[in-house]
Amino acid sequence: MAAAFQGVPIGFQLGIDLGGSKLAIAIADADGGLIAHQTRPSQLSGDPEADVLAIAAEAADLIARSDLAARDFDAAGFSVPGPVDHERGALLAPPNLPGWENVPLRERMSELLGFPVRLENDANAAALAEWRFGAGRGARNLVYLTMSTGVGAGLILDGRLYRGHRGRASEFGHSCVEWEGERCACGQRGCLEAYLGGAAWTRRLREIAPATSRVCALAGARELVSPKHVVAAAGEGDAFACAEMARFNHYLARAIAALAFALAPEVVVLGTIATAAGEALCLEPVRALVEAQVWPTLREEMRILPIGLGDKLPYYAGVCVAREDVTS
Amino acid sequence: MAAAFQGVPIGFQLGIDLGGSKLAIAIADADGGLIAHQTRPSQLSGDPEADVLAIAAEAADLIARSDLAARDFDAAGFSVPGPVDHERGALLAPPNLPGWENVPLRERMSELLGFPVRLENDANAAALAEWRFGAGRGARNLVYLTMSTGVGAGLILDGRLYRGHRGRASEFGHSCVEWEGERCACGQRGCLEAYLGGAAWTRRLREIAPATSRVCALAGARELVSPKHVVAAAGEGDAFACAEMARFNHYLARAIAALAFALAPEVVVLGTIATAAGEALCLEPVRALVEAQVWPTLREEMRILPIGLGDKLPYYAGVCVAREDVTS
Repeated sequence: MAAAFQGVPIGFQLGIDLGGSKLAIAIADADGGLIAHQTRPSQLSGDPEADVLAIAAEAADLIARSDLAARDFDAAGFSVPGPVDHERGALLAPPNLPGWENVPLRERMSELLGFPVRLENDANAAALAEWRFGAGRGARNLVYLTMSTGVGAGLILDGRLYRGHRGRASEFGHSCVEWEGERCACGQRGCLEAYLGGAAWTRRLREIAPATSRVCALAGARELVSPKHVVAAAGEGDAFACAEMARFNHYLARAIAALAFALAPEVVVLGTIATAAGEALCLEPVRALVEAQVWPTLREEMRILPIGLGDKLPYYAGVCVAREDVTS
Repeated sequence: MAAAFQGVPIGFQLGIDLGGSKLAIAIADADGGLIAHQTRPSQLSGDPEADVLAIAAEAADLIARSDLAARDFDAAGFSVPGPVDHERGALLAPPNLPGWENVPLRERMSELLGFPVRLENDANAAALAEWRFGAGRGARNLVYLTMSTGVGAGLILDGRLYRGHRGRASEFGHSCVEWEGERCACGQRGCLEAYLGGAAWTRRLREIAPATSRVCALAGARELVSPKHVVAAAGEGDAFACAEMARFNHYLARAIAALAFALAPEVVVLGTIATAAGEALCLEPVRALVEAQVWPTLREEMRILPIGLGDKLPYYAGVCVAREDVTS
């Protein structure tokens, strides 16, 4: 098998973003322009080998429909949930992909595709995408925070992806934002994820949302409420939803303030629910809360932004993993 | 003026560490071996130009006494308190060196010495020293925390010094470790520095130390108590001193836990008072407190260590600034 190319892309790249709910596949040219892409529900079978075969077949099909062949590709990038064992090219305890641990994903996909494959944690992949093509273009230091089922962080430091020792620097979601606070799924107390993560927030909402609130009306029933209903109801001025957004913004601002003092990033990109909530419900209040906690010298040059790639982020995430020469 | 050398040192390096209380000057050979060094009280005159002239004359004298000349040197490294403006080669608002802001220190020292000068914040310089020659040798990711008058951090990430946007990543001492906590000299509340910094802690001790405590006896009077007396009295089992050390360790552990989740370092080096307090009074309790807050996967490979260079740290700090090719 050829080694992954080093340096500037000269051919095409294949990007694959495998999430708990969706599978996105894209092809980009040497400049990073998307020339083909498709998304489907991921619907994993529980048998990783069967799923890998299906994903590779779909990718091959997209390549053929684009009048390209394996020889036209520099590399494929695979964005996956959870930490990655970069030495073995495998996933480490993927919370949303049971059975995928210890699967030699990088080697197997590479055999099937016929060109080199790179593997990356999804928050790192999204950080690369927003840095190279999205809201953080031109920045040297960028933090990407995503609040989907869990809370993930991707760090671009000094102009390259920072993974930490054995790739474990993405666990920022378990930083403490409330001493002796809510119990997190990880067992610790007061984790950022226990407040901002979709799983934890959804559980809370289904316990405490008033039956008469707009949140429950939008969801149809309290047991169907999720954060997206909070965003919608807060947009209509519902008191319960506004209080929930204020709580979300409060803890998000604490996390950003901690990052500001530790890393002095130029750009903080907020994905998923923060981007969905938008300026009035999330970004403006969060900026004001950060301003109250962070010195002017640090905050004045730190931009807090929503994602710039919209629903194309998963495509660019996969493509950017293929394009990036990460040495650590 | 010649540009600072790039890459591997081939000649000698001059290291200067200018602190609020002491000035340390050292000469190292190409391998980093110290061949001469001296320390004196810094006793600054209030006139930076006069002080710079005096420091340069002293350095020239040490060079001459070592039978060396300016042409034998690759570079000088200058470790200074507070943030550095790397573009202008000057100090930014140095809290312990009033009058030194906007002094073109790098250019002026270089004129006087006859070879290139590099300037670095003291916590960054100490992080480089402990990484290259001290407790963190061989690590790819290291955090150095110093608790002298203030609290500073130096980050070695992916095998190089990380400075953050405009060199402002060393302000980790102002991360919040207690919401609505103690007022810090910076104006914020609950900063790490408000608990661990020597200035804040000394102020607190002089307010609350019981007149009958061993701490006051060791100091001679309550208004003379400082953290070193707490360390000494805690070593003798004094109850007040032990409670103060427990408080120090509690907040230090919170800060280390936050760094673990954000950056997954391999090594955390604790300087000054933590090193002085040692294993039983500080390092062992801190490791146990961190263990209760950080996942096994992260903490098992994160070593928490005292400094390895002892009282030679200031010499190596200056020398390492001279030796390092920092690009950001």
